[in-house]
Amino acid sequence: MSMKKVPGTMKVSVLRGVGEVVVEERPVPEPGPHEVLIRVTAVGTCGSDVHYYEHGRIGDFVVREPLVLGHEPSGVVVARGSEARAHEIGQRVALEPGVPCSTCEQCTIGQYNLCPQMRFFGTPPVDGAFAEYVVLREDFAYAVPDELSDEAAGLLEPLSVGVWSCRKASVGPGARVLITGAGPIGLVAAQTARAFGATEIVVTDLNPDRLALAGALGATATIDVSKEDLANSAFEPDVLLECSGAPRAIGTAIRKVGRAGRVVLIGMGGDEVPLPLAHVQGFELEVTGTFRYANTWPTAIALAAGGDVDLDRLVTHRFGLEEVEQALTIAKTDPTVIKPVVLPQVAHA
Amino acid sequence: MSMKKVPGTMKVSVLRGVGEVVVEERPVPEPGPHEVLIRVTAVGTCGSDVHYYEHGRIGDFVVREPLVLGHEPSGVVVARGSEARAHEIGQRVALEPGVPCSTCEQCTIGQYNLCPQMRFFGTPPVDGAFAEYVVLREDFAYAVPDELSDEAAGLLEPLSVGVWSCRKASVGPGARVLITGAGPIGLVAAQTARAFGATEIVVTDLNPDRLALAGALGATATIDVSKEDLANSAFEPDVLLECSGAPRAIGTAIRKVGRAGRVVLIGMGGDEVPLPLAHVQGFELEVTGTFRYANTWPTAIALAAGGDVDLDRLVTHRFGLEEVEQALTIAKTDPTVIKPVVLPQVAHA
Amino acid sequence: MSMKKVPGTMKVSVLRGVGEVVVEERPVPEPGPHEVLIRVTAVGTCGSDVHYYEHGRIGDFVVREPLVLGHEPSGVVVARGSEARAHEIGQRVALEPGVPCSTCEQCTIGQYNLCPQMRFFGTPPVDGAFAEYVVLREDFAYAVPDELSDEAAGLLEPLSVGVWSCRKASVGPGARVLITGAGPIGLVAAQTARAFGATEIVVTDLNPDRLALAGALGATATIDVSKEDLANSAFEPDVLLECSGAPRAIGTAIRKVGRAGRVVLIGMGGDEVPLPLAHVQGFELEVTGTFRYANTWPTAIALAAGGDVDLDRLVTHRFGLEEVEQALTIAKTDPTVIKPVVLPQVAHA
Amino acid sequence: MSMKKVPGTMKVSVLRGVGEVVVEERPVPEPGPHEVLIRVTAVGTCGSDVHYYEHGRIGDFVVREPLVLGHEPSGVVVARGSEARAHEIGQRVALEPGVPCSTCEQCTIGQYNLCPQMRFFGTPPVDGAFAEYVVLREDFAYAVPDELSDEAAGLLEPLSVGVWSCRKASVGPGARVLITGAGPIGLVAAQTARAFGATEIVVTDLNPDRLALAGALGATATIDVSKEDLANSAFEPDVLLECSGAPRAIGTAIRKVGRAGRVVLIGMGGDEVPLPLAHVQGFELEVTGTFRYANTWPTAIALAAGGDVDLDRLVTHRFGLEEVEQALTIAKTDPTVIKPVVLPQVAHA
Repeated sequence: MSMKKVPGTMKVSVLRGVGEVVVEERPVPEPGPHEVLIRVTAVGTCGSDVHYYEHGRIGDFVVREPLVLGHEPSGVVVARGSEARAHEIGQRVALEPGVPCSTCEQCTIGQYNLCPQMRFFGTPPVDGAFAEYVVLREDFAYAVPDELSDEAAGLLEPLSVGVWSCRKASVGPGARVLITGAGPIGLVAAQTARAFGATEIVVTDLNPDRLALAGALGATATIDVSKEDLANSAFEPDVLLECSGAPRAIGTAIRKVGRAGRVVLIGMGGDEVPLPLAHVQGFELEVTGTFRYANTWPTAIALAAGGDVDLDRLVTHRFGLEEVEQALTIAKTDPTVIKPVVLPQVAHA
Repeated sequence: MSMKKVPGTMKVSVLRGVGEVVVEERPVPEPGPHEVLIRVTAVGTCGSDVHYYEHGRIGDFVVREPLVLGHEPSGVVVARGSEARAHEIGQRVALEPGVPCSTCEQCTIGQYNLCPQMRFFGTPPVDGAFAEYVVLREDFAYAVPDELSDEAAGLLEPLSVGVWSCRKASVGPGARVLITGAGPIGLVAAQTARAFGATEIVVTDLNPDRLALAGALGATATIDVSKEDLANSAFEPDVLLECSGAPRAIGTAIRKVGRAGRVVLIGMGGDEVPLPLAHVQGFELEVTGTFRYANTWPTAIALAAGGDVDLDRLVTHRFGLEEVEQALTIAKTDPTVIKPVVLPQVAHA
Repeated sequence: MSMKKVPGTMKVSVLRGVGEVVVEERPVPEPGPHEVLIRVTAVGTCGSDVHYYEHGRIGDFVVREPLVLGHEPSGVVVARGSEARAHEIGQRVALEPGVPCSTCEQCTIGQYNLCPQMRFFGTPPVDGAFAEYVVLREDFAYAVPDELSDEAAGLLEPLSVGVWSCRKASVGPGARVLITGAGPIGLVAAQTARAFGATEIVVTDLNPDRLALAGALGATATIDVSKEDLANSAFEPDVLLECSGAPRAIGTAIRKVGRAGRVVLIGMGGDEVPLPLAHVQGFELEVTGTFRYANTWPTAIALAAGGDVDLDRLVTHRFGLEEVEQALTIAKTDPTVIKPVVLPQVAHA
Repeated sequence: MSMKKVPGTMKVSVLRGVGEVVVEERPVPEPGPHEVLIRVTAVGTCGSDVHYYEHGRIGDFVVREPLVLGHEPSGVVVARGSEARAHEIGQRVALEPGVPCSTCEQCTIGQYNLCPQMRFFGTPPVDGAFAEYVVLREDFAYAVPDELSDEAAGLLEPLSVGVWSCRKASVGPGARVLITGAGPIGLVAAQTARAFGATEIVVTDLNPDRLALAGALGATATIDVSKEDLANSAFEPDVLLECSGAPRAIGTAIRKVGRAGRVVLIGMGGDEVPLPLAHVQGFELEVTGTFRYANTWPTAIALAAGGDVDLDRLVTHRFGLEEVEQALTIAKTDPTVIKPVVLPQVAHA
C-alpha cells in the first residue's frame, strides 16, 4: 500500500446514544487489498441520519454501539490497497456507500441492493462518512468529472434514489408523473423524471417554498395539498413516485393513477399502509417499493455532469465536523432547509 | 347471413332482481356482420354471478335492468354474419366473454382487458350466456380441439384467469409459488403454475376437501390455515397468487414472499386492504392485481388440450336452464361444491 | 355526415408507371362511419416514394395500378363520418398513414405494425397523400398542438421511426448510441436518442453537410467514413441504430457494439447482409429490425411540441402538387437535400 | 483448511499439443480461502474439447501451454478453504465451470457470463476437469440431490446452455419452437423447451438416430433435412434455437420464423453468417447469440431432479482418465455417439 501525507489519526463524529453526537479521535483506517482510503470532502445529511439520532433505530436496525452516521459522501483517493488499481492517488470520487458480498444469489443476478450481507454506511453496525477519512472497496468509488462540485458528488447518492425509482417505474419519453412530497428525494425525483423524458410532472407538498423549488427544477405543475385536495385534480398520471411516506396521502395518490400505471413507494411510512385494492385490480396497477439502488452511479454522474439534473441547488446549509448535531436538527426549526451538508475537513463551516 | 335449424325464439335465464331468477322466452339474436351465432352447450358459474344474484351489484356495476348472467360458456357455431369467415357452421367453440372496442389506446397497445368500452357477458348492462343462443364477435370465439369436453371448453375462462395471473407473476421454470385460497381460481392457478414450470407450489385454504383436490392437481404441499398459521411456515415463495380476497390473509401472505418476489392479487377483497409497506420496500416486492385477461385463450387451449391442466375435474354439479337458481345457491349448503355448470340446452340436468 | 366547403372533386398526383407522375382530377372521397375527411396541408417525401417512382416496386410490393404516393401527411379535418366523434371540424391533425385490421392476433397483442391486413398509404394497392384530400380512420388522426407547424406535423411520421427504433433499442439515460447514416432517419434518430436520455451519440456518414447538421441536432461526435474507418474508432456503443442500409457498413458497425448491446437495423439494404456471428455470440448482442412503428404518435408529438426534437430544421425544399416529380428527383442532383415537402393545396410552391 | 484422505498428487489428462493427450502426475491443488477441493466423479466431453484437441484453438483462444480440458464435471467436496462454509465435506456437487471476477460492470449487473476476466475450465490458459481433483470457488459448486446421477450432475452444464437459450428466447407456455441440429445441445434444448411450456417442438438433423432420440425426448415432430427441405415445411415457429452452426441452415431456418419471433444462435458457425435482413425487418425478428450462461444451475437442477429433463439418456459412451483421447475421437467413427463421459477416478471405464 502506497500512502502519502495521510496522518495516523483522524476526527470522527460519533452517535453515542439518542441525541448525543460527539467528535472523537480515531486511527485512520488502512485499506484492504482491494480498497482505497478516501479523504472525505462533503457529506449530505439524510432523513435516516436524523431518525437514528432521534430514535436510535430504524425498524430492525438498532444502534447498539457508538455509530458514525453519514452515507452521502464525496472525497479524494489518498491511498490504495495492495491490489487496488481502479483509481490514481488524488482522484476525486463519489462514494456508493453500500458494499454487498458480491457472491450471493441476489448479487449474482444483479440486484445487489437486496444482498443480505450488505454493509451500508451509517447503518448499524457499519460506520458512515461523518469522518475525515473512510475506506471503501475500490469499485464502489466512482471518478467524478470536473463539472461536478464536491457537494454535488456527495448528492449523487440521493440522485441514485431518483434514478432507481424512475427505472423501477419505467419512466420514459412522454410519461406523466405524479410525485408526492417535495423533500430532497421528491426534488431529485422530479429532475430525474424530466431527464428520463417525462413531459408532465406534477409535484405535491404542504410547503410552498419546496413547491416553488420543484417548479424551478422541472415540475410542470405543483399542488399545495394544504389548500387543494389531490383527489379533486384532473391529472391522471402513468406513474406515481411516492416520496412522502404519509399513509393517507399514499392511498389518495394511488387512486389517481391511470390504467396499467406504475406506483413506486419510496417514502418510508411505517409498517403498513392501506392499499386501494379495487383500484389496483381494476386498473392493473403495478406497485413496488425501493430499497436503496443498484448500478445507478454511472447514470447519475452522466445526468448531473450533463446538466440534466442540478444537485447544487439542493444544498441549503453547510456544517463542519464539530457541527453534525446542528446539521441533524436544523430542519426542525428552519423551514427553508432542503439539504444540509457536512464538510468533514473543517470543524466549523 | 346463412342459417339453418335455428329457431326464432329461445329460452333465457334472467336475473330480475336480487334473489330472483326466471326463464323467459326471447327472440334469438341475429349476428352482426362480423359476428357468429352460437348455440350454448355449457356455462360455468362464477362467484361474481352469485354476487350479482345476492347483492344486485359488484362495486360500481349495478343491475338496473333484468340481466342474463353467465360468462364461462362453450358452444357450437350455428350461423355467421355477412362478413364472418373465421369459423364454419358446426364448429365447436370456446367463448371469450368480453369484447373490447379494439380502437382505443388500451386496445391498441395490447391490453384490451382495460378497455373502458369493454362489453362483458353477464355484467350490467350486457347480457351473458345462461341462454340457449348468444352472438359474439367471431374473433372472440376459439375453435376447440376434440380433446376438450364442452364443459372444459367453458372453463377455459377461469383457466384464462390462471394464465393471466401466472403471466403477470412471471412464473417460470423452478419458481416457488404460494397460492392462498383453493377455490376454482386457486385450483386452476395451481395447475397453471405447474404448467408454467413452477416446481414448488404451496396452496392454503380452510377446507380440507379443497386442499386434497389441490394436492391432486399439482400442489406440492398444502396448508390448512384453520390449523396452522401461514406466518410460521418456512416456505419463502418467489410468487404469491392471492386467490382468497381475505384482507387479513393478504397481509400475512405478502410477508412470506422473498426478495424481489411478485404478488398478484386476484381475489376480490373489498375496496382497501393493508399493505405491509416495510416488507414491500425492504424486499422490493412487485404487487399487482388482475382485471380479467387478454390474449389468453390460445395458451389456455394448448395447456388444457395437452393435458397440462385438468378442467373436467373441477366440475362437481350440473344444472339445466330452469335450475340456474340452484346453481347459484348450492355452494351455500354443500361444502363439496367446486364448480357448478349450467347446460342451457336442457331444462333439468 | 356533416360537410362544409368541400368540393366534389380534387387534384391528385398519380404514379402511372416507372418515372411517370401526373396530376389527375378525382372525386373527393367520402369518409366511412368512423373516418374523417382531411384537407392535406403538407406531406414529406420519403426514400420509399422515390424507390417506387424509380423502380415500380419495393420487394414484394409491386405497383400494378396507378398509385398515389406520399405517407408523411398533415392536414385539417373538414368532414366526419356518421359515427366519428374524436375530432371537431377544423382540427389540425397529423396522420398515422397505416390502418391495421385491429382484430387479428398481431393487432390484439399490441403490435399492429405487423398486421397482415395493414393498409398503408402510398403502398400498392393503397393510395397515399399526394392529394388535396384523404380519408382516414379517426383514431389514426392525432390533434396537433400549436407549437407544431404543418410541415413538422407531417414529419411526425419519420420521427415515429426514430421513436420506434429507440424503443426497440431500449435507449435510456446515459446510453451510448452509434447511428450509421445521417439521412432524414439518421437525423431524427439522433434527436430521438438524445430525447430518450442518451449522453453519447456518434453519427457516421459520407456527406459533410449532413454530418454538420447531425452535430447541430444532438450528435456529440460525427465520423466522416469517407476519411476515417469506423473500425478504428475507440467508441464502444451500447446501441447501434443502423440507418444506412449499406451491407458492408452494417458488419463493421455491429462489430463496434459492446457487451449485451442492442442493434436495430432500420435502413433497408437488400435481402441479405452478413452478420458477424462470433461477435454477436461472444457479446450476446441483440439484433432486430424495424417495420414501421406502433403507438408512437403521442410520444412523437410530446417530443416535438416540447422542443426536444426539431423537425422543421429537416425541411430543405418545398413543392406544389404539380411538382411531385421534382420532389422525388431533386436529391439526385442536389446534395443539400434532406427532406423535400409537398404542399398539396398549391400547384407550385 | 481441513482435509482428510486426500493424497498429495493426482493424475491429470493434459493436452500437450494438437492431437496429443497424455496423463501426468501433478500435485493436488489447495483450495483458496473461499474455495473447495472436489474429487471429480464424471465429466462430459464437449465439441469444444474436441476442437481444441484437433486445432489447438477456438477463435482467439489459443492453446500455448499444456492444457487440461473438460468443463462438464461433477464430484464430491473433499476439503474446504479457510473461509468456505457453503458445503460439508462429502457433499455431492455439480460444478459451474466458469468463475467471473464478481466486481466488474458485467458481473454487477447480473450478466457475469460476459465478464472479461472470466476464468473458464478447459479454456486457455485455465485448466479443466479431466483430472482426479479440482478446486472451485464454493459458490460455483451446487449441491446435487439424490435424484441425479453423477453423470447427470456433470451434464447440468449442457443443460444450462438449454436453459439459458430458452430464457433468451422467452420460451413459454404454448410456444412453437424450431430446433435446428439434434446433437447434445439440440437434444437438451428440446427437453428444456418442453419444460418451459412449449407445445410444438420441431427438431431438424441429418442423422436419423439423433432425430429418433429427439422424438423420444420431447420433440413433437422431426425433419430429416437430408430428405426434406426445411424451406418447404408449413411450420411457422415463434422461436428458433439454432444448434447446428451451419451457415446455410441458419438463413433457411430464420426465414421460417413468424412475426416478432425470436432467434437464438447457439451453434458456432464461423465468423460470419448471412442474415436475411428483409425478413428480419419485415417480421421484426429478434436475433441474438449465447455465450455460455448465467444463473442457470438452480433451474437446471430443478428441471433434472423433477424429471422434466432426462440427462442420463444422453450418455452413450464412458471412458477412464487414460482414455480421454478415445473420448475425444470416437464421434469421428461412431455415428451413435451423443455424449461420451470421462470418469476420472478410473483409468479405464
